[in-house]
Amino acid sequence: MTTALRFSLLLLGVSFSQGFLNDFFDEEEQAERVVQASKYGSLWPLPQKVQLSEVSFKLNGVSFKISDAKESTTGSSCSLLQDAYRRYYEYMFGSFKRQEGRKSRRAGPSDLTELQVWITSSESDCDSFPSVTSDESYELTVDQPYAVLKAPKVWGALHGLETFSQLVYEDENGAKSINSTTISDFPRFAHRGILLDSSRHFLPIKVLLANLETMAMNKFNVFHWHIVDDTSFPYLSRTFPQLSQQGAYHPYTHVYTPADVKMVIEFGRLRGIRVIPEFDTPGHTQSWGKGQKDLLTPCYSGSKPSGTFGPVNPILNTTYDFMSQFFKEVSTVFPDAYIHLGGDEVDFSCWKSNPDIQKFMEQQGFGKDFTKLESFYIQKLLDIVATTQKGYMIWQEVFDNGVKLKQDTLIHVWKGNKQQYQSEMANITSSGYQTLLSTPWYLNRISYGQDWKGHYQADPQDFQGTDEQKKLVIGGEACLWGEYVDATNLTPRLWPRASAVAERLWSAKEVTDINDAFNRLSVHRCRMVERGIPAEPLFSSYCPREYRGV
Amino acid sequence: MTTALRFSLLLLGVSFSQGFLNDFFDEEEQAERVVQASKYGSLWPLPQKVQLSEVSFKLNGVSFKISDAKESTTGSSCSLLQDAYRRYYEYMFGSFKRQEGRKSRRAGPSDLTELQVWITSSESDCDSFPSVTSDESYELTVDQPYAVLKAPKVWGALHGLETFSQLVYEDENGAKSINSTTISDFPRFAHRGILLDSSRHFLPIKVLLANLETMAMNKFNVFHWHIVDDTSFPYLSRTFPQLSQQGAYHPYTHVYTPADVKMVIEFGRLRGIRVIPEFDTPGHTQSWGKGQKDLLTPCYSGSKPSGTFGPVNPILNTTYDFMSQFFKEVSTVFPDAYIHLGGDEVDFSCWKSNPDIQKFMEQQGFGKDFTKLESFYIQKLLDIVATTQKGYMIWQEVFDNGVKLKQDTLIHVWKGNKQQYQSEMANITSSGYQTLLSTPWYLNRISYGQDWKGHYQADPQDFQGTDEQKKLVIGGEACLWGEYVDATNLTPRLWPRASAVAERLWSAKEVTDINDAFNRLSVHRCRMVERGIPAEPLFSSYCPREYRGV
Repeated sequence: MTTALRFSLLLLGVSFSQGFLNDFFDEEEQAERVVQASKYGSLWPLPQKVQLSEVSFKLNGVSFKISDAKESTTGSSCSLLQDAYRRYYEYMFGSFKRQEGRKSRRAGPSDLTELQVWITSSESDCDSFPSVTSDESYELTVDQPYAVLKAPKVWGALHGLETFSQLVYEDENGAKSINSTTISDFPRFAHRGILLDSSRHFLPIKVLLANLETMAMNKFNVFHWHIVDDTSFPYLSRTFPQLSQQGAYHPYTHVYTPADVKMVIEFGRLRGIRVIPEFDTPGHTQSWGKGQKDLLTPCYSGSKPSGTFGPVNPILNTTYDFMSQFFKEVSTVFPDAYIHLGGDEVDFSCWKSNPDIQKFMEQQGFGKDFTKLESFYIQKLLDIVATTQKGYMIWQEVFDNGVKLKQDTLIHVWKGNKQQYQSEMANITSSGYQTLLSTPWYLNRISYGQDWKGHYQADPQDFQGTDEQKKLVIGGEACLWGEYVDATNLTPRLWPRASAVAERLWSAKEVTDINDAFNRLSVHRCRMVERGIPAEPLFSSYCPREYRGV
Repeated sequence: MTTALRFSLLLLGVSFSQGFLNDFFDEEEQAERVVQASKYGSLWPLPQKVQLSEVSFKLNGVSFKISDAKESTTGSSCSLLQDAYRRYYEYMFGSFKRQEGRKSRRAGPSDLTELQVWITSSESDCDSFPSVTSDESYELTVDQPYAVLKAPKVWGALHGLETFSQLVYEDENGAKSINSTTISDFPRFAHRGILLDSSRHFLPIKVLLANLETMAMNKFNVFHWHIVDDTSFPYLSRTFPQLSQQGAYHPYTHVYTPADVKMVIEFGRLRGIRVIPEFDTPGHTQSWGKGQKDLLTPCYSGSKPSGTFGPVNPILNTTYDFMSQFFKEVSTVFPDAYIHLGGDEVDFSCWKSNPDIQKFMEQQGFGKDFTKLESFYIQKLLDIVATTQKGYMIWQEVFDNGVKLKQDTLIHVWKGNKQQYQSEMANITSSGYQTLLSTPWYLNRISYGQDWKGHYQADPQDFQGTDEQKKLVIGGEACLWGEYVDATNLTPRLWPRASAVAERLWSAKEVTDINDAFNRLSVHRCRMVERGIPAEPLFSSYCPREYRGV
């Protein structure tokens, strides 16, 4: 390889730390390797409007404070904000603060000594749960005598704190610095999610919390918890404890207790993240059948039961009694206004084999069309869930099969190639439904090289449709299915690849410069590493402070 | 998906822990998912001869001891073995030992109370470095009144301890147990390596040591340390400290000091692992040029130097003076009998552009054939290294270009598809040279799914050639190049994928049953996890004790 090393110093000094990217190219992959400083430093995702100046201030960790503005409608009683102040102080000054012997010095004229946080709405949402309609906007002004972060609600303030922390960098002497800056920011899409799968592999609470923490660093706001599936049922139900007793990998060490679930939800809330559980039926339910007799369809081999089971049995009243009680519990345990009901990949072979199902099909006049039986089941399930006052999300098959859906249903697109998912998005929105996209963001499907670029380039509004249709796209989710992922490799596999999706869903549609993205994302990933998250590298490079784990 | 859950209990109870693999299949990927108990439990790599009985003994962590047999030629002065006894005791009883309140109970009749380690050769090699000719064989008998591990040298004893620890499992009450067993074992290939690249990303010492530890669990015996390359020069040379001062990512935080290197070598030695450094020239040397003036060839743009540099400048005497001094140092720092000299991927465009090089080519009568210039350089380098009394390894290009090589040179095959590398192996061995294979084991090239199966199926002796030729194959190396790998993701990306290569290089040629391999490897990977190594999962499953990191 001929490799010419070059080194571009950051011009504006707005990066987290300067000059750590080794910048080189070769004939093969030139486009992959040229690195230059972004004029936006390490901001990620890029805010909607940014004005940076070259005037810089010093931040002194001993005297710097984050405080409530006098005019703010919240005060010290808002523990969501107080927690966030502490968290961001730690991110910005963690290593500094530890030098305890150091004397406090008087603030100099070039110092920025304070960030004032000003909640402007009379309803701060401090003690609420975030929702799809939450106002997440904020305005940030970094100038003397102090910086001001204004937001209608706490959700915007949380995002603004993250942005403020991203503006802080170390100058050539290692002094924490920040440039005079004005930012006005809000998300492009209201639903910006990550799906994690705790069924194929159990994910310890510690892993879930670390990833919620990282989601907040990337302004994600939905944790789609694919909590149970065929392989295991780790959700400990108060009403049906036998489900996890029998269906979890282990009834004590591999379950989520009610206290665990509560902790995940509160940890998310404190970071502006909604927790939407998925309880997928009627397929993907093998593990349910272990603890709940007669819930699944007995499969037949010829005229005899084979001993194996298929999807949920849709012809028994006991099934619907169970679902009523179960979803009543779920609706109280999870405060979010939505539940994900799954509905994907129902295999008909077991239903086809079962004589009782055959008889039922005949009685109902379904002929040989098993999608009608599936719709029959889903229809009844949706009616049950509707009584809990929850809205629902479902995978696209439910829509494709023509099930009657409430107008506020969110249809989750996950199948097909680009042409197919774009046409699906067009169909869904032309029927007046809201939709969100995951197809191009199946992050479990790893490949060699910088696959984040493909994730970055997908756009959920990129399909044929009217402006009205485009407005029905509420966002998307990056999915990390669990077949090949557990506590050992989840975090580095997810980050910073999911960060690409984060920017697509937050920043303006026009933010598509892949080289600028590479420059900012490289620094952003080192920031995640410095905060203790093992986010993997984009390419040959180094971080000033490497990951300290193994 | 129709998914039938099944559960196969391990018949012989020889596994590390029973019944934790969820066993299911679907129509799509049936072959990928059927799991059954292996009659060989969790042994990995599979020993050459194993006889297992159903008679089982209990191991009591309070009273169990590993000790030197009376007849052994080593005693308590052999700290290599004493360290290993402690390590393996910890692996086997670590969690047990912590229950300190527990009373010691008297040994019962079904207890196994001791493992005696018996070194039979008068030269135990306790204080030596391992080499390519080291005897790694051992014999293990687990029976009452005590188990005996016999080995000519300490190297075999280390492997036998690992094997013994792999025989220990927990019975249904959680009691540590082991079955009566006779094993006779030795490696199929003498050179079983892992290449790690500390140049594209700096790898903290902690990461290197954790992976040496894991290599020992897999009976690897060579750490090929690709220590420097274009991107950075982290090796702190005593003779030329400016190389890392200028060429490392950071001169203090991203270098390997002499003490670091010494620690890596000793840590490896205590585990029977050789450390072979690679200092690749004349290509892949951009980082060398920063600290060593005139070492690299100035490239020209037309009649003027372009300011960039190409490979090592082969026409200056100063180049060879430098190399003499540098490799003299390297040969004393690294005790192994071999140094890897690289020699791959030399790009000629810069040489072609340089008028002084052109003149030299003419004087030497090389015409326009730059491989002759490359060979000229390599020839001189090999002569220099030969004076240090070291043998050398080189990448296949050096052989392909017809450079004259010492008969003990090891030629490292890394290029081409299966047909091409097999024909390369045939050519090399028919010329009478020893060779080792890496082409099918570029583990940096990740893909979705169970790619370990492909790694498992490759065999380095699988080419057209005589028995004499086959004997010239000394083994192979799994390579994890560093473009996309650093401390955040190296370990889970390497393990257990490299374990597939470990078994191919250790076990008998006939050990090719992929389903049996899956069953054993699944348990082996959980054992690595329990020992604190974040080895990633093969497929949906769980470990009794999940990884405790993030």
